[in-house]
Amino acid sequence: MKDTKSFFPDSADILKAASQISKFINYTPVLTSSYIDRITGAQVFFKCENFQKVGAFKARGATNALLSLNPGQRVHGVATHSSGNHAQALSWAACIAGIPAYIVMPVNSSRVKVDAVKGYRGEITSCKPTLEAREETLKMVLQETGATEIHPYNNLQVIAGQATAALELINEIKGLNVIVAPVGGGGLLSGTALSVHYFLPGAKVIGAEPEQANDAWLSFEKKQLVPSVDPKTIADGLRTSLGTITFPIILEHVDHIVTVTEDSIVKAMRMIWERMKIIIEPSSAVSVAALLEKKNEIAGKRIGLIISGGNVDLDQLPWITP
Amino acid sequence: MKDTKSFFPDSADILKAASQISKFINYTPVLTSSYIDRITGAQVFFKCENFQKVGAFKARGATNALLSLNPGQRVHGVATHSSGNHAQALSWAACIAGIPAYIVMPVNSSRVKVDAVKGYRGEITSCKPTLEAREETLKMVLQETGATEIHPYNNLQVIAGQATAALELINEIKGLNVIVAPVGGGGLLSGTALSVHYFLPGAKVIGAEPEQANDAWLSFEKKQLVPSVDPKTIADGLRTSLGTITFPIILEHVDHIVTVTEDSIVKAMRMIWERMKIIIEPSSAVSVAALLEKKNEIAGKRIGLIISGGNVDLDQLPWITP
Repeated sequence: MKDTKSFFPDSADILKAASQISKFINYTPVLTSSYIDRITGAQVFFKCENFQKVGAFKARGATNALLSLNPGQRVHGVATHSSGNHAQALSWAACIAGIPAYIVMPVNSSRVKVDAVKGYRGEITSCKPTLEAREETLKMVLQETGATEIHPYNNLQVIAGQATAALELINEIKGLNVIVAPVGGGGLLSGTALSVHYFLPGAKVIGAEPEQANDAWLSFEKKQLVPSVDPKTIADGLRTSLGTITFPIILEHVDHIVTVTEDSIVKAMRMIWERMKIIIEPSSAVSVAALLEKKNEIAGKRIGLIISGGNVDLDQLPWITP
Repeated sequence: MKDTKSFFPDSADILKAASQISKFINYTPVLTSSYIDRITGAQVFFKCENFQKVGAFKARGATNALLSLNPGQRVHGVATHSSGNHAQALSWAACIAGIPAYIVMPVNSSRVKVDAVKGYRGEITSCKPTLEAREETLKMVLQETGATEIHPYNNLQVIAGQATAALELINEIKGLNVIVAPVGGGGLLSGTALSVHYFLPGAKVIGAEPEQANDAWLSFEKKQLVPSVDPKTIADGLRTSLGTITFPIILEHVDHIVTVTEDSIVKAMRMIWERMKIIIEPSSAVSVAALLEKKNEIAGKRIGLIISGGNVDLDQLPWITP
């Protein structure tokens, strides 16, 4: 099925992504919790991308983007600027493919993340911690190496790859009424919305966002791209702004954006750790907090919720003051 | 198949337990980790009882013991003394069955655990924090209420119930060569060993124990019951001594007891949290530490490992000094 906006990934793109990444990534389990069902009055199915390779859904998009390159591109490797999960995911995917990954990371990136990229043999170029410096340094790296830039979210193959998480969930759990995913740059949310549009038409899609980084909510309300300005939220994966590709997809195929407070994010994160015994990162807790916020509207429904990742610094938990 | 020791639970007892508890408990998932496989050189299958009802395998034994009572016994309820997972498990099972649970808890029991028991409508009697006081108080409660005592591990129905975790694992993952479980009072280990004996003959069974609470190792070596004396270990579920029923089963059907240091327990716990994104309690980490200790001997083998539970006080993590 071709979408009305012809540049959006179509259903064939998503099915192709699912097929070509399947032998590299984890088919992640879907968990349930009788406690969460009781307090929400809904049936909630958690698609656990915290159990994905590199601990986050980002492995899907990075792998798909990399497999979509032609041999002439692959030989020169891939590059990106990122201080988070995408840097790990791209290094990991490139490592498996046996091609170089050039990662531009701001000097203030956490030791843990730098080490993870190095562990996957990513070649790091440090830069000042500003978007301008990141982009300029990346441009230089691209010129020097001939590598192909893989943007963390504003990239059609990345979006098609992220869409496969919702596709797996839709195929495994029948009759979902609503799917919830967090929104930062919008790669996961736009992919999720496209999968619902093609493979579960009629179901609703909810994007979950921190109040403190509400550029998606603002953009959605105003129907024009409003970038976030230095957002302060514990959900470090959601500090980025929507992109020129992800935004129109979200505008067309997402039903609501729900924003949540920092306090509710931390509470939801701890609740999932305590009750479900799984480690989720703050960005994933944003979806859970949105679910609790909207519990009157979801009662009696079958909800799919994408747990985006589980990469947390275990030395710094938000409920422990050292 | 009847065991040589006629009082041990036989295969029919374990199959009956599996059948009668199945609609109350969770069929827990089996997870794998390519990281753990890489560092051990083995294929390790984690049976995740941290995802069990009340967050621990104890739900199995408590449910089976309770379902094995006759109607005349059930009406008077059940009782135990426990400050840990068994108190929660028995209260939970009794709550579902709609019968009273009388729990004797030492006054220094953690608030979290007391609240959990209350949440399942367990009736708590407090006592001094000594074994003598616990036993005397329980005796009094039993006399007053007519309830049936359900011992946390030295009870044939409890053992048959705990055996069902290994049974599920054996049925789901074919060709395991070794199964590892932690040992405290021995309910889980003796049940596991019986399931291997009946349903996977020829496979090895390893018990994992903290060096600081090595009564099972000592008893196993000396072939006589050596109770532990005030053991100090972070693995709070494993501070109890073997019982008169669990010990002979372990002596006959377990191949090795491996002891591990406190430091290796904490490291293994953190490794599983970071790499597998699941929350396991220190008692479960003891099995992982034992696996790492014996990695030369398990290379190339298919290992089943029972993650016993995930009940951790998230305000007090062993790697964070507040």
